[in-house]
Amino acid sequence: MEIKSFQEFYAEDFSHCYGCGTNNERGYHIKTYWDGNETVSKFKPKPYHTALPGYVYGGLLASLIDCHSTGTGSAALYGNLPDEEKGEYYPRCVTASLKVDFLKPTPIDCELELRGKIKELKGRKVIVEVDLFAKGEICVKGEVVVLQVPDDWRPK
Amino acid sequence: MEIKSFQEFYAEDFSHCYGCGTNNERGYHIKTYWDGNETVSKFKPKPYHTALPGYVYGGLLASLIDCHSTGTGSAALYGNLPDEEKGEYYPRCVTASLKVDFLKPTPIDCELELRGKIKELKGRKVIVEVDLFAKGEICVKGEVVVLQVPDDWRPK
Repeated sequence: MEIKSFQEFYAEDFSHCYGCGTNNERGYHIKTYWDGNETVSKFKPKPYHTALPGYVYGGLLASLIDCHSTGTGSAALYGNLPDEEKGEYYPRCVTASLKVDFLKPTPIDCELELRGKIKELKGRKVIVEVDLFAKGEICVKGEVVVLQVPDDWRPK
Repeated sequence: MEIKSFQEFYAEDFSHCYGCGTNNERGYHIKTYWDGNETVSKFKPKPYHTALPGYVYGGLLASLIDCHSTGTGSAALYGNLPDEEKGEYYPRCVTASLKVDFLKPTPIDCELELRGKIKELKGRKVIVEVDLFAKGEICVKGEVVVLQVPDDWRPK
């Protein structure tokens, strides 16, 4: 049985994100999964996603951390629901704040791995800590505050 | 006389950034200019740069703030050089940390304007504050720490 990514549990009208939307033909299609208590996404940058030659563009790294975190928030909020409230779709989160520390240049010639931990879950807010690895080394750290979108934004 | 953007003063080998490199055919080509003591970039998102339908993807907004800030840092460091050390190219900066607060959803159907201020310039480090406007309203605020790249990274 194929395991679906968090993003495949977003409602159709909430699946247009350039970073992770399954309905965005031009986007990055970031996919996130549970791995024990952590969440994992993997992504292979394209050769043109350069900062300085040989290294990944920081805006892409921030984008990966962003969508990894909204996905993690969605999955955490869903997991926290009582069984009788669990529906077909995950709650959808948006980002309130994004903090990214670039510890070292991230090489572009390899698959990147993002690992997330839930630092706090309170009401509609989730704080996610993310480490981004290339070739086994942490290159970037992120802390992201995500919020469940209001009910009246939900697709009918 | 056409005024050149900061990014057009980067050395050729430092012009491959996906966000702002003049030599990156696939990239965003962000261009930044002085406006008094502030710096300005303008950018029209593509229809596919969506978060939720109608709004701009946060990863793109973070990317714009990132490159606006490295550009602002470069121009500020160049402006700070004694005249006899001013060469053909601006010093090139990379991002050490990026903090972005999404105050409200950013509409996608308009040109975005980023305005930057130099909060601190000390040695090789510049801290840049950025406000991102859509339709005259601040939607996103950023604070970015950028560092001049080491001399031994400079293209020969």
